[in-house]
Amino acid sequence: MTAGVVETVAALRERLDRSRGAGISIGLVPTMGALHAGHTALIERARRECGCVVVTIFVNPLQFDREDDLRRYPRTLEADLDTCRSLDVDVVFAPRDDEMYPSPPACTVRVDRLADHLCGRHRPGHFEGVATVVLKLLQIAQPQRAYFGEKDAQQTAIIRRVVRDFNVPVDIVEVPIVREPDGLAISSRNVHLSRGERRVAVSLYRVLCEVQRHIAAGRTDAAEVRRQAAACLPADDGLRLEYLELVDPGNMQPVERITGPVRVAGALWVGATRLIDNLLCKPPG
Amino acid sequence: MTAGVVETVAALRERLDRSRGAGISIGLVPTMGALHAGHTALIERARRECGCVVVTIFVNPLQFDREDDLRRYPRTLEADLDTCRSLDVDVVFAPRDDEMYPSPPACTVRVDRLADHLCGRHRPGHFEGVATVVLKLLQIAQPQRAYFGEKDAQQTAIIRRVVRDFNVPVDIVEVPIVREPDGLAISSRNVHLSRGERRVAVSLYRVLCEVQRHIAAGRTDAAEVRRQAAACLPADDGLRLEYLELVDPGNMQPVERITGPVRVAGALWVGATRLIDNLLCKPPG
Repeated sequence: MTAGVVETVAALRERLDRSRGAGISIGLVPTMGALHAGHTALIERARRECGCVVVTIFVNPLQFDREDDLRRYPRTLEADLDTCRSLDVDVVFAPRDDEMYPSPPACTVRVDRLADHLCGRHRPGHFEGVATVVLKLLQIAQPQRAYFGEKDAQQTAIIRRVVRDFNVPVDIVEVPIVREPDGLAISSRNVHLSRGERRVAVSLYRVLCEVQRHIAAGRTDAAEVRRQAAACLPADDGLRLEYLELVDPGNMQPVERITGPVRVAGALWVGATRLIDNLLCKPPG
Repeated sequence: MTAGVVETVAALRERLDRSRGAGISIGLVPTMGALHAGHTALIERARRECGCVVVTIFVNPLQFDREDDLRRYPRTLEADLDTCRSLDVDVVFAPRDDEMYPSPPACTVRVDRLADHLCGRHRPGHFEGVATVVLKLLQIAQPQRAYFGEKDAQQTAIIRRVVRDFNVPVDIVEVPIVREPDGLAISSRNVHLSRGERRVAVSLYRVLCEVQRHIAAGRTDAAEVRRQAAACLPADDGLRLEYLELVDPGNMQPVERITGPVRVAGALWVGATRLIDNLLCKPPG
């Protein structure tokens, strides 16, 4: 119940310097707010592992490739603060846009290869915006650990690479996807779904499970597995599969033959809402 | 006389964690070795201001746009270590290429605008390589202060911007240019000059002084000042002026009318050696 809201970089640093000076480890949970059970899992994990938990709430304009998506991204600060209090978060950092970007940045993170496929291919500049804001938050908070969700698997792979390539002294912790009872991955964007859309939205998860089943059964031709699984998508005018890809879990490059663990990832448009999901798949034996 | 050479990131961090734990401030002097009086000025300044001085010696392949320049860049490690010992440096970090780049980096620093002119225009990718390695060194050493030479004014402006845009918690200290008695700026590349080349190499400084004189006299048309100053360059087949520009000292953008302090910067080829230099110029009153 101690969650204080901090709005400036200077105030956050001052607050965290005190913890650091007292030898308390810092855990960072970067979010864009609209906190849900997925975020709760991140925060609870951080709470167990760190002496001081910092949740950041910042809808980062740099990572939105579509103006309308940025505009309609859900903003629920009061409810988020209640959630943070109930989870015993120590500090909430909720800066304004001009605190994070006093002027348009001249230096940003360039991401090669890892952003070429999946969401990176369909959202130009998205992951460079993510990598840039996460690098900034890591510099501001200087945590021992930072927590990210497996749902954004490509994002987490890219952040691991930012940390490795720039030698940032932090451990990246990846927390499993939290799902609704029917399997739909929990997402801030689910609130946009109408009742009918919500019902068919689970199709994405079902397609991924179909891929997982084929691979567990020993199928090795990635293109064929994809084709057969995608055919399970119900015929519905509101559904459009943006991508369905099988990639190497480390470097996020597409695989053709399945000879080891792969990640299957998909993006599905349900009406005007874009949902993503992924599953780790293991061949038999 | 305590300078120990450290070759790995892990060993450097362990060494510096001890200093940090004891409340000792860390000063970082990043160099490519071939230490000369310019570096000495950086190290002496760091020695006065910091409890623990770290000099890094790393010829960063990522910032070389020409293979032959990388190959013939002077490497004088033993002499450099003597210099560091004589200046009471605490730690020399001299990693191998594969310690800094275990694999080709997927994430690098993208630099917009600030690298569009001067050296950035003539050395594609150079400043992104510089920004990337300096960001890495700052993450590895986590110094309170880092020292750079005014001679590489565009580099220093870009590093200031890296620090600001990514919120890196470090103070950047800029140290004035050190010159030979005739005015030639001291540079690791000066060793490549033949005796005849050395004599005419000072022409670059003389051209810059000519610009400074025109501006001090109240001239405001940047193009005209440039043209007249460049005309002072001696007719010599071995000399080629790559650029001569008047820029805003903060954002490194060219100015047309001189209404406040400007930096004049030039690059001169002397035979097969490329030299750079710059001067801050102030209009009268």
